[in-house]
Amino acid sequence: MTTASAPIWDGLLLGASLATLAGAQGYGEVADGALGWRDGVLTYVGPRAALPDAPPRLAREVIETDGGWVTPGLVDCHTHLVFAGERAREFELRLQGASYEEIARAGGGILSTVRAVRAADEDALLRQSLPRAQALLADGATTLEIKSGYGLDYENERKMLRVARRIGVELGIGVRTTCLAAHALPPEYAGRADAYVDAAIEWLPRLHAEGLVDAVDAFCEGIGFSPAQTRRLFGAARALGLPVKLHADQLSDLGGAALAAEFGGLSADHVEHTCDAGVRAMAARGTVAVLLPGAFHVLRETKLPPLDAFRAHGVAMAVATDCNPGTSPLLSLRQAMQLACTHFRLTPEEALRGATVHAARALGLADRGALRVGARADFVLWDIGHPAELGYWLGGRLARAVYAGGRKRA
Amino acid sequence: MTTASAPIWDGLLLGASLATLAGAQGYGEVADGALGWRDGVLTYVGPRAALPDAPPRLAREVIETDGGWVTPGLVDCHTHLVFAGERAREFELRLQGASYEEIARAGGGILSTVRAVRAADEDALLRQSLPRAQALLADGATTLEIKSGYGLDYENERKMLRVARRIGVELGIGVRTTCLAAHALPPEYAGRADAYVDAAIEWLPRLHAEGLVDAVDAFCEGIGFSPAQTRRLFGAARALGLPVKLHADQLSDLGGAALAAEFGGLSADHVEHTCDAGVRAMAARGTVAVLLPGAFHVLRETKLPPLDAFRAHGVAMAVATDCNPGTSPLLSLRQAMQLACTHFRLTPEEALRGATVHAARALGLADRGALRVGARADFVLWDIGHPAELGYWLGGRLARAVYAGGRKRA
Ligand SMILES: [Zn+2]
Ligand SMILES: [Zn+2]
Repeated sequence: MTTASAPIWDGLLLGASLATLAGAQGYGEVADGALGWRDGVLTYVGPRAALPDAPPRLAREVIETDGGWVTPGLVDCHTHLVFAGERAREFELRLQGASYEEIARAGGGILSTVRAVRAADEDALLRQSLPRAQALLADGATTLEIKSGYGLDYENERKMLRVARRIGVELGIGVRTTCLAAHALPPEYAGRADAYVDAAIEWLPRLHAEGLVDAVDAFCEGIGFSPAQTRRLFGAARALGLPVKLHADQLSDLGGAALAAEFGGLSADHVEHTCDAGVRAMAARGTVAVLLPGAFHVLRETKLPPLDAFRAHGVAMAVATDCNPGTSPLLSLRQAMQLACTHFRLTPEEALRGATVHAARALGLADRGALRVGARADFVLWDIGHPAELGYWLGGRLARAVYAGGRKRA
Repeated sequence: MTTASAPIWDGLLLGASLATLAGAQGYGEVADGALGWRDGVLTYVGPRAALPDAPPRLAREVIETDGGWVTPGLVDCHTHLVFAGERAREFELRLQGASYEEIARAGGGILSTVRAVRAADEDALLRQSLPRAQALLADGATTLEIKSGYGLDYENERKMLRVARRIGVELGIGVRTTCLAAHALPPEYAGRADAYVDAAIEWLPRLHAEGLVDAVDAFCEGIGFSPAQTRRLFGAARALGLPVKLHADQLSDLGGAALAAEFGGLSADHVEHTCDAGVRAMAARGTVAVLLPGAFHVLRETKLPPLDAFRAHGVAMAVATDCNPGTSPLLSLRQAMQLACTHFRLTPEEALRGATVHAARALGLADRGALRVGARADFVLWDIGHPAELGYWLGGRLARAVYAGGRKRA
C-alpha cells in the first residue's frame, strides 16, 4: 500500500522537446522531454517516459505545453547595455554622409555617451538601461554580462556597476559585472593615458571591495590602450584575484588574444585580426573566443575572425550582442546568433552553443549554459519546430516563456 | 451658453510626437502631437495645441501616452509568408557545408515548400502562416502584400490566395494578394515552361473572378521565367485590368525592371542588377523599386542595387521583408529597415519612407502610408526617442501599440 506523499519538486515542464547541449557535440535532443526543478536548480532532465513517478506526485506545479523546444537560458557574455542618451541620430548622420569630425562636432561619438552617463543620476541610468535588459530577457537571455566603461572616473564607473547589479535584482536574472574603466580615455586625461591607467588601477580594489567587480576588461587597440597598459591593469586584477577578459584584435593585431591568454583570461573578444599564435595561446589556456557579429555587421567589416583555426585548435567560440549604442545596437542575443550564422558562417548549433555553454564558460560560470541536473533552472520555451530556427529567423517573438532560477521572468 | 455635444471622433491619441511622412521630404515631425480618427479614418493629424475643442468633447476614447513616437502603420509590400513546412534545417545543412545537390537530395529547396503547401489543407496552411503575419503585425506592419507561388497548380495557388485573404480578416489588417504562379516550374511541367505559363494564364481569370487577385507577379530570371514568358503573362494581366509587379534583375540583368515599367508595373523588386536604362524606364512610368535586403543578407550578395541612380532619377524606393523560408527568413519589417540601412546605406528616413509611403505606392494604395486626414487610421505607437531608431536597433520590442483601421490590433 502506498501513502500520498508531498510533491518533491517546485515545477515540472512537459510536452516540449529538449535541446540540452549537455554533450560535447550536437543539440542533446530529448524528444517528449521533461524538465523538473526545485529551489532554482534542475532536478530532472530527460524523457517524460523515464520520470520516476506520476507528474502530480512529483511537482507542485506541472506545466503541460503543446510542442516547442526548451533550451538552456541564453547567456549574453559581452554587453555595454548600461548607458544614457542615444546614438541613433549619430547613426543617421553617418548614413547621411557625415564625417567622423562632423559627428564629433555634432556631439556624437563615445564621449557623448560618457557625458550622458555622467549627467544621469543612478536612478535615471537604471531607468534608461532596464528596458534593454528586459528586451534581452524577453528574447531568452537569463544571464547578462554588463560592463562599465562610459563613466571613466571613479564615481561614474561605480554608478554604472551599481546599476548593473540592480538590473539583476530587478529582473531576477543573473548579472556578471565587468570593470571596463580602460574603455576610452576621458577628456580630462587627454595625452596622459598612463596616468589614467594608474587611476583605474587605484579604483579597482575599492570597487572590488564593494562587491561590484566580477571581472576586469580593457579595450586594447591602437585607438584604445596599449598592450603595456593593458598588462599593468591585468597585473592589478591578478593581485586582487579577479579574472580578466579583453577587447582584443578587433581592428588590428596587437597580440591582444595572446595577452589575454597569458593572464589566463576568461575570454578574448572580437578577435577578427587574431593571428595563429594568438589562437594557439588561447587554446593552451582555455580562453574563449567571444564573437561579436553585431559590430561586424554595423561597421560593415570584412575581416572574419580565424574561425577555422579556432575550430582546429579547439578554442571554444561564444556569441554575444556587444549591446552598445555606437557600434552594436542589438537588443536580442538570438539576432546576434543569426548574424553569426550569416556573417561568420557558424552553424546554428555552433551559434546556440556559443550563446549558452561557451558563453557561460566565457564568464567562468559552471552552473549554467546546459540543461543538466544540478544546473541553475534557467531555460527558455521556444515556439519553434527545430533548434536551428534560433539562428535562422530575424525578428519574431519566438520565446514563449523564459525561466531564471526556476521562476518565470518573461 | 453652450450645450453638451456628443463626441465626434472614435479615438484621440495624445502625448506622443508624430512622424507623419506627409511631405515630400523629412519625417514630417509634429512635437506634442494629436491623432484623431473616426470610422477607421484619420480625422485629425497635428499639434495638440491646435485641436478644435477639449479632448473629452472630441472623442469617445482619449488615449494619453507618455512620450514615444507615432508613425504610419508599416506596409510590407513583398512577402511570401503563406507557406507550409520549414527550411531551417536546410539553412543548417548549407552552413554545415552541404552542396545544393545534397540539399535537394535531402528534400530541400523551393520544391520542398511546394510539396508541403500542396499537402496541407487550407486550415492547416492558415494555422502555419498566421503566426508569421502576427509577428509582422506585432512589429508594426498593418498592411501586408502576400504572394502565392508555392502551389504551382490551380487548386493550390487558389488555396494560398484564399489563406492570404483569411489572414487579413483574422487579424483585421490590410492584405493585398498577388498571384505568383510564375514563381518556379512545378515538376510535372519539367522542360515545358511555356506550357506552364499557358496554364498559369488560363488560371488567372478564374482566380480573379473569385476576387483573389490584386496583382500579378513573376520570377524573371535565368533560373526562373524568361522575359518573353513574363511578357505573355503580363499581357494576360493587362487584359484583366490587373496591375503587375516583377521579381526583376536579382541575380542577373535580364531587363526585368524595364519590362515591368513597360507594362506600367507598380514595382520592380530586388533590382540589384538593374542597369541605367532600367532605372530610366522605371522613372518614366513611376514604377517603384522594392529593395529586399533580407535576401541580400542571407545570400551574402555583394552587388548593390543602383541606389544613387534611383535617387538621381527620382525612382521611389520601398523596403520589404520578402518573408520566405528559403532566402529571407524575416519576421519583422523593422529588421528589413535595419538591413537596408546597413547593407544598402539607406538613411533611416529613406528606410522608414520605404516601409510606409513608398511601400503603399508599390501596392497602388493611395489611402495609407502617411498620417494625413482622410487616410486609413493605421498607425504605430513606438517606444523610441527618435524615428531614426526604427532603422537602428536589431531586436527589441519597440511597438507599444499597433492600430489598423482605427482599432488596436497588437
Ligand atoms: Zn565591447
Ligand atoms: Zn520574392
